[in-house]
Amino acid sequence: MTLHTGREFMERTKYYNLTPSDQARGLPHPPVELELPGAAYTIDLPDPREFCPANISVTQAILQRVSVRKYAGKPLTKAELSYLLWCTQGVKSIEPHLVTLRTVPSAGARHAFETYILANQVEGLTSGLYQFLATDHQLAKIDTDDSISEVITEACLKQNFVKKSAVTFIWTAAVYRMTYRYGQRGYRYLHIDAGHVCQNLYLAAEAIDSGVCAIAAFDDDKLNEALGIDGDNQFAIYVATVGKKA
Amino acid sequence: MTLHTGREFMERTKYYNLTPSDQARGLPHPPVELELPGAAYTIDLPDPREFCPANISVTQAILQRVSVRKYAGKPLTKAELSYLLWCTQGVKSIEPHLVTLRTVPSAGARHAFETYILANQVEGLTSGLYQFLATDHQLAKIDTDDSISEVITEACLKQNFVKKSAVTFIWTAAVYRMTYRYGQRGYRYLHIDAGHVCQNLYLAAEAIDSGVCAIAAFDDDKLNEALGIDGDNQFAIYVATVGKKA
Repeated sequence: MTLHTGREFMERTKYYNLTPSDQARGLPHPPVELELPGAAYTIDLPDPREFCPANISVTQAILQRVSVRKYAGKPLTKAELSYLLWCTQGVKSIEPHLVTLRTVPSAGARHAFETYILANQVEGLTSGLYQFLATDHQLAKIDTDDSISEVITEACLKQNFVKKSAVTFIWTAAVYRMTYRYGQRGYRYLHIDAGHVCQNLYLAAEAIDSGVCAIAAFDDDKLNEALGIDGDNQFAIYVATVGKKA
Repeated sequence: MTLHTGREFMERTKYYNLTPSDQARGLPHPPVELELPGAAYTIDLPDPREFCPANISVTQAILQRVSVRKYAGKPLTKAELSYLLWCTQGVKSIEPHLVTLRTVPSAGARHAFETYILANQVEGLTSGLYQFLATDHQLAKIDTDDSISEVITEACLKQNFVKKSAVTFIWTAAVYRMTYRYGQRGYRYLHIDAGHVCQNLYLAAEAIDSGVCAIAAFDDDKLNEALGIDGDNQFAIYVATVGKKA
């Protein structure tokens, strides 16, 4: 019976229905980034602060943005990818108590995401699935098997523009980094924060002549499995394709 | 017992646990805007397309944005308010099947929000609570009682910068506009969409020398009551204060 799932969730995440969070109970802070499973092959990204995107105004970017599902089939440069990663999750500083300040707002600066990218067409980067290491601004190779683009497209309910994109961003929630402070109400904030991040992607893409299409319609289990995450402590929360405008 | 509320919500909103949505069942489309309760006093806003904000680049806006809780105590002009409303929920066109295209992305272009503003200091506007009528780009007066600013600050857990702000945006979810298409999974999307909208507010504010602080920590019941909404079919989902930078 799922008729009132949403309503129940909203009710149970009201303050008077919450139990004290782990932070309130004095438990230790979780790390700002999940540890990679095993030794990973990491790739440095160009310094995003040295990249010069087009000088489009914030107002113009907001006004001209539309969701773009058809791309020119041209690759992104590694510098452009680096810029988009910086604009969506770039770490500006690490503060006391394992808090990061980033290029996006986040409830209580929890920044409870790990970003994955499916790189289909990025100059100088083998096609495949990578994890973004925000604190070091690097990529870690996860899966460069030939089938990974197809697997992720399938998990996104066969929306073919996933594999036709230059890059597809997949944001995952590292749940405890949020619930540590906010308890179960944190599930609201994870979704809100995903919206902040994706909106920056939409607008930053306008500065590199690219278009974005956000995707929230995916098979959760299949997508989590493709990423190699458990789906409970860490789950895919939002997806967005990027490609040069046709 | 609220220990697994979030996990249960995520599980129950997976596709294989959803029942067919009302749209899938062929029920009629809900309207693009909730009807106002009773006759309302409406106020025209200046044409936002004639307003000239500062020419700040999207990259600069993203990089310099921080959450701002202290304001200069200066008013916003009505044109500035109009610009912010346009950048966050402005209706660019109304498409067939009662779908709107707006200045923000929304799952399936559902755009299931009604925006309220608490105007504390806006030139030419009596202080009070207003509802934004997105399709006509107007405000409707809801409550100009002297106490409303205090009531809403109280509902926002006494975060005093609410009443010190020039304007506080309060986005409410008009739930059925979203669940009509997506069923209970739509509650995820409502929150994600709230993030899109607020991020545009953060960035647009940079173009009028203003700062924003988003607030998701509020007493749901008190805030819904202050707005005069039922909290189930329509509920406050996100709040953000705006004021000139000090």
